[in-house]
Formats: sequence, C-alpha cells, structure tokens
Amino acid sequence: MFLINGEYQQHINIQDRGFQYGDGLFETLEFIHGKAVFLDRHLNRLTLGCKTLGIPYPEQALLEQDIIKLNQSDSRSVLKIIITRGIGGRGYRPAESIQPTRVLSLHPYPIYPETHYQLGISACFCLTQLGLNPGLAGLKHMNRLEQVLARAEWRDDSVQEGIMLDTNNHVIEGTFSNLFYVKNSQVYTALLTHAGVAGITRQIILELLAFNGIKVTESFFDKQEFLEADEIFFCNSIIGIWPVKQLADRAFQIGPVTRAIQHWYAEFRNKAINGAD
Amino acid sequence: MFLINGEYQQHINIQDRGFQYGDGLFETLEFIHGKAVFLDRHLNRLTLGCKTLGIPYPEQALLEQDIIKLNQSDSRSVLKIIITRGIGGRGYRPAESIQPTRVLSLHPYPIYPETHYQLGISACFCLTQLGLNPGLAGLKHMNRLEQVLARAEWRDDSVQEGIMLDTNNHVIEGTFSNLFYVKNSQVYTALLTHAGVAGITRQIILELLAFNGIKVTESFFDKQEFLEADEIFFCNSIIGIWPVKQLADRAFQIGPVTRAIQHWYAEFRNKAINGAD
Repeated sequence: MFLINGEYQQHINIQDRGFQYGDGLFETLEFIHGKAVFLDRHLNRLTLGCKTLGIPYPEQALLEQDIIKLNQSDSRSVLKIIITRGIGGRGYRPAESIQPTRVLSLHPYPIYPETHYQLGISACFCLTQLGLNPGLAGLKHMNRLEQVLARAEWRDDSVQEGIMLDTNNHVIEGTFSNLFYVKNSQVYTALLTHAGVAGITRQIILELLAFNGIKVTESFFDKQEFLEADEIFFCNSIIGIWPVKQLADRAFQIGPVTRAIQHWYAEFRNKAINGAD
Repeated sequence: MFLINGEYQQHINIQDRGFQYGDGLFETLEFIHGKAVFLDRHLNRLTLGCKTLGIPYPEQALLEQDIIKLNQSDSRSVLKIIITRGIGGRGYRPAESIQPTRVLSLHPYPIYPETHYQLGISACFCLTQLGLNPGLAGLKHMNRLEQVLARAEWRDDSVQEGIMLDTNNHVIEGTFSNLFYVKNSQVYTALLTHAGVAGITRQIILELLAFNGIKVTESFFDKQEFLEADEIFFCNSIIGIWPVKQLADRAFQIGPVTRAIQHWYAEFRNKAINGAD
C-alpha cells in the first residue's frame, strides 16, 4: 500500500528527481499496535537530512495524516517514508521553487527466526566498499547502489548480514544495519563522519550505554579489531539487536554486554510503544 | 514523451529499484535528423555498466525498437535512456531473477548561446566533493546526489559550469561534463579510476588527440594545475566542447589546442551523423 502525496497510488511520475537522481531521503520504522515506533526520532533525522540536502521538509501535519490514513490494521509492519525533492529543474539543477514528494508505505514485517536474536547470526565481510563523502555521510539518502552491490555479494542464507568497509579500509556498518564491538567491557562503533548511515537504533544504544555508565568510543577501526573483539552486534529499527556468533572464520560468544544492551533496548522500546504519548 | 518498457507512460512503478535505491544506469545522447549520435558508443557503455552492476542488459532489439518508436520528429532533441534493475527483491537484496526496466525519453534540446562554444564560458569550483569509490567510478549510474548538490551551489547564470574535486582534492570533472586542460601544447585530464563519469565525448577526444599525435596524460591534478593551465575546456554529448574564458579569478585565452579539438570533434560528429551506417 503506497501513499504518494496523500493519495493511494502504485506509480510515481517518471520525472520525479527521486527516480532520476536518487534525490531524496528515506526512513524505515517499526509499526505496531497502530504506532510508529520512535517516530519523533525518525522525523527529526528526516528534517535534518532535508535541511542538509536543501529539500523543503513537508508539513509535519501532512506526514502525520498520511500515517493515520495508512494505519488500517493492528498487525506489526514496516513503515517506509520517502521524501524526494519532487519534480522539476533542468538536469541536476533543482528548480527555484519545488514541491517535495512524500511516499509512505506499509510492508509486512519480515519474519526472522527468534534464534537470530537469542543465539546470534553469521556475518561476512563484503568486498564492495563505501565511498567517502563527508557531505553525505550519516544521511539515509536514496543513493544506495553501494548497499545493493554489497548485499548481492552473497546468496548463502546461512549468512545474515555483511560488513562494509570504506575505501580507507575502516569498518563502517552492515549492509542494512549499524555495528558495534565490545572489548574488555568497553564498546566501540564506527565514527560516521565520512561514510555510513547514522542509525536511530545506533543512537539509542549510544544513549543507553552512556546512561548505564559504559564507555563507548566512536572512531575508525579496521577488520582486525573486530576479529579480535569479545562481542559483536548489529542493530537497526527492524531487527533490533542481533549478536554475532560467527564472523568470517571466527566464532564469537554472545557476551554480557550484548545481553545487557538487548535488555535495555527492549525495555526502552516497550516504553516507547506503551508510553503515555 | 516517455517510453517505459516500450509503452507510452508518464508514471513508473513506485517499487522500481531505480526509484527505491538509484539502482540503475543512464545515457544522455544527441538526437538529430532521426539519428541518435554515437549510439553504439553509448550502448556499449550501458552494456559495460550493466555488467559491472549485475543488471541484465535488455535485448538490444528492444532498445532499438523504442528509439524508432520515439523518433517522431526531425528536430534536434536529447535522448535519455535509463536502465534499472527492475522491480523486486527484499530490501537491498536483488531478486534472483529480475526483469530490468528501460525508460527512454526525448527532451527539447537545450538552447545554449553560440558564444559558449565560440568565446568560452565562466566556471567555478564547487564545494561539494565527489566521494571515492573504485567500484562505481566511471559508471553513469543513477546515484547523482553529489552532482545535484554541486549544481545547487550557484544560481548566478553568468557561471555555466562548476568543477568538482574528489575527497583527495583532485579535480575530477564538471557537474555535467568532463574537463581537460592544456599546458605547453600537452593535454591533461583526470584519471577516473576512483570518481567521475567516463564520458563518451571525453573518450572521443582522447582518441582524436592520439590520432593527431598530441600527448594526453590521464592522472590526478589539483586546482592549482588547472589555474596555471594555458587552456581549459569542458565536454559532453550535448554541449560538445566549451572552452573556459574565466575560472574563479583567472581569465583564460581560448587557445589553439582547444580550437583544433573543437574542429576535429565537429568533423567526427558530422561524419557520424551523415555517415554510411
């Protein structure tokens, strides 16, 4: 089910700059019991992204109306929100005055085995690299060819996620997730100033770690540091937190820090779903 | 006028991966007297791009049929050909078997003053950088946010093109063109192994220079080397060759090498248009 600028439609104008140039941004949220989980955080990131790209942010009321219109069942689903710069301009040059396009859609929640969460997943390193671009780093923009190529590298269903390095050989993220490692009870994750998507779940985890007095370092790390870690986990808004049981040739234990973060994050998410707002 | 998979349509399926991820490639050609200029070269680049991205290349006969179908006037126009990976797959992961989407369209030829060609243009340096990605460099893929942001940097119509540097501060290309400089009768242009689009006109110029015994060096150059050049020119399939008369604070003469290349290229293009094939 797709809502394009508030209307149920399955097709979009071919001249939309989202199609022509990937000139837009998107968000992927969990939708449950009629509620978009962490909606404020996602819309904040979207607002910030629009500002960075110079795309007028649609009226928030319109987005909220769209969400209400889409919300016709109580089942758990995935909400995708896309904002593009709209139609117009000559070539790459955007028109002076342009109406952004908003596309909202609900999708069946992917069915992942509970064991991914409990017992961990297997991951590989991808060969496709992330280009460095400080101007676009952090944004969830629509230029996603690198992720498409990385995800196409493996067909083996026993591997659930692939890790992407940037062109400096720093470990940045998973193809559809962010990534942390734990060493001697301290937590490490990639600094996203040059590549990668600044995930909402990643941000919440950083806050939960700070709140619980666990030191986190955001910096640049290479493969070896991940392979010598005590624990590794992936995260995003849909999967939550998946520990790693196998990365390349190394087996990992699911350690106490990952378990604690899973617990804190589950509590935090439950509060958001059942909370007063 | 848009042909989507051979049918006249103005809208494309919202689930097309071209829209969702910029998962595709495009070509922009001159269309004149019922002929797509340098069509073979453009389709060769498209074939190579599809191979690199793992997108099945549509049957050439279909593309040729589409072009004949579109060709309803004798006027000079711009032909744009887009190939996307099509609809399907789960998230970034492409489906095992997927039908590519082809979008062909004709657009009015942009009206540029003859003085751009004769007397040269003014150019600026853009702040938006090109990310480095050896896996995507050279391809005319649909992830074009960097160009959009660069082109949005100036609104002054007395500046016709902007020059983009990569994150290593090497001069790579214009926002919609490639770029050469001349120094002591030798010609220099960026090596496109890490960023940039390997333009068809750029390639023809390299061949014409070789044929005429002028030495060309493809390498990495910084701003200063361009600012100290004797001559600079931009090129692409639509503008042909535009000399630079002003770049940042420096005025340039339109020198003999640029004039010779304009002459050779005009001859070569005329032969292609009026040729026997």
